[in-house]
Amino acid sequence: MKVHFEGESREMHSLWMEGTEIKFIDQRLLPHKLEIFSAKNVKDVAFAIKDMVVRGAPAIGAAAALGMAQAKIQKEDRNKVANILRETRPTAQDLFTALDFMLKKIEEGADPKEAAKDYIDNILNKCRKIGEHGETLIKDDQRILTHCNAGALATVDYGTALSPIRLAHRGGKNIFVFVDETRPRLQGARLTAWELLNEGIPHALIADNAAGDFMQRGEIDMVIVGADRITQNGDFANKIGTYEKAVLAYENHIPFYVAAPITTFDFSLANGSAIPIEERSQEEVLKIGSELIAPSGTKARNPAFDVTFAKYVTGYITETGVFKAEEISSLKSHAIR
Amino acid sequence: MKVHFEGESREMHSLWMEGTEIKFIDQRLLPHKLEIFSAKNVKDVAFAIKDMVVRGAPAIGAAAALGMAQAKIQKEDRNKVANILRETRPTAQDLFTALDFMLKKIEEGADPKEAAKDYIDNILNKCRKIGEHGETLIKDDQRILTHCNAGALATVDYGTALSPIRLAHRGGKNIFVFVDETRPRLQGARLTAWELLNEGIPHALIADNAAGDFMQRGEIDMVIVGADRITQNGDFANKIGTYEKAVLAYENHIPFYVAAPITTFDFSLANGSAIPIEERSQEEVLKIGSELIAPSGTKARNPAFDVTFAKYVTGYITETGVFKAEEISSLKSHAIR
Repeated sequence: MKVHFEGESREMHSLWMEGTEIKFIDQRLLPHKLEIFSAKNVKDVAFAIKDMVVRGAPAIGAAAALGMAQAKIQKEDRNKVANILRETRPTAQDLFTALDFMLKKIEEGADPKEAAKDYIDNILNKCRKIGEHGETLIKDDQRILTHCNAGALATVDYGTALSPIRLAHRGGKNIFVFVDETRPRLQGARLTAWELLNEGIPHALIADNAAGDFMQRGEIDMVIVGADRITQNGDFANKIGTYEKAVLAYENHIPFYVAAPITTFDFSLANGSAIPIEERSQEEVLKIGSELIAPSGTKARNPAFDVTFAKYVTGYITETGVFKAEEISSLKSHAIR
Repeated sequence: MKVHFEGESREMHSLWMEGTEIKFIDQRLLPHKLEIFSAKNVKDVAFAIKDMVVRGAPAIGAAAALGMAQAKIQKEDRNKVANILRETRPTAQDLFTALDFMLKKIEEGADPKEAAKDYIDNILNKCRKIGEHGETLIKDDQRILTHCNAGALATVDYGTALSPIRLAHRGGKNIFVFVDETRPRLQGARLTAWELLNEGIPHALIADNAAGDFMQRGEIDMVIVGADRITQNGDFANKIGTYEKAVLAYENHIPFYVAAPITTFDFSLANGSAIPIEERSQEEVLKIGSELIAPSGTKARNPAFDVTFAKYVTGYITETGVFKAEEISSLKSHAIR
């Protein structure tokens, strides 16, 4: 991704290795400050994941892969290090996938830095291909709505939902992006807007309440979002509010796309009703930053994700192409890799 | 409305007169502090309206009526005072209605305090009747969603959308209210939650993004919102986000009601496309309180209202009963008063 850093525009990943240090764009400080967090050892890497210096499932996986490579170079016990990293975040499947991949590679005698590079190249490759396939869906002069942050920060580069948008812009298409602020945690306002601003992509931040109005007035031509998990029939879980935007797009006859690598498909679940939805702390709704926005005594409900039914989805943008819900079963063979 | 003030629970209006002073619940300080703002003269009243000590069209009208009464007692020039108050806010129709009503009454030789009391009693009466009619639609154990603040603070007491909810609770019905936080200005979080908390009505604050999810999961039984303007065919303008909730309620087969006095109906407009929508300052979206939530350089769009089509509305709760869109023309005769 393009970022403005130390007075110049340059290409940067959300994380990378320099010598034996792992470098992270410190996402806790965005969008107001771009600072690089350096992890010198496994303790630092574990802190970076736990404290959300790095977030987004693919990026967390990449951090774990680099952490294992670092540990091997520093001659740490690989199982001990894997156990420390395994404890950092409970839900990101990619964390465990990356640790298992690295343990296996090291056991097989592979070079740990090369193995981590392979793991990360695989993420980069998939995200770039999602961008290439998705980009073909975007026409010149189109206005695209996105929700939350499914960008380069959450992966390593390109992003999932933001990858087609990035490539369309780089290819010279004139596009405009509406960014939902994405309460309660404001990932749209803080992270997606930051990525688009750095890339020079014209955009406007809107309150989550306003997306429907812009659709109704004909100011939005398509919607692209990411996904946390997609079931066999095409139902999918994503950041709270995704379902609202999908219903509104459907009602206004606006194409609605989900961008995700095939690893996001869970072929063991028949439909969305089987996806467990995490309800997070009330504080996220009751406060913005440190400021209490509601009267003391008021309680809040805070589902972190919602489930969107396949009927609202125009297509699924993956690294092997764009598919309809009925075609998902054909992706099963790709998922084995 | 019930409020907790100086250590006890008591009945209070959003504004009232004591001697020659006009007292306001200072809405700028809610929900964290309940303080009374005293307006000693027309300068203070104008400040209270301009600086949003008082907000909500009916409450602003009431403030203007009391302001005119105060001016008459203080032997101020009534036309000069009316002109000062007329300049405070540009859009609230009630402000002009109240000033014209008071000028006429004073010209006719009516007692100005009595005239202002009549004006306010009329608001109170309508809101109470909206509550009585709307209350019959609410069943025991129902869970109701509301958006923004159409409460006692915005009127003088009872509210419009909150009036049926208040009366259902006072009548002993077991109800639960989901409160949309209502970005960008957070009237749900700051004002509606405060009113419900004071009244002892069980409620939960939710991010605007979450309303659809709760509907999909069957946790919301009905929706009641207020309106800024309702056209002949039943289309109506209200706080941004109302359209989103209406579409989601329709999709989930949940009854959706609009509560408003007949003065809110604009029989001169055929449908919602004729309602002008105000786009407000970007700052409201880019900041929460004084904190910038987006990167410096990102722009925002901020429509303050949206238009909801009549097809999504189950019924209109007015002071003379509950009506369907097809019946709106029959209300025209009531509107002449």
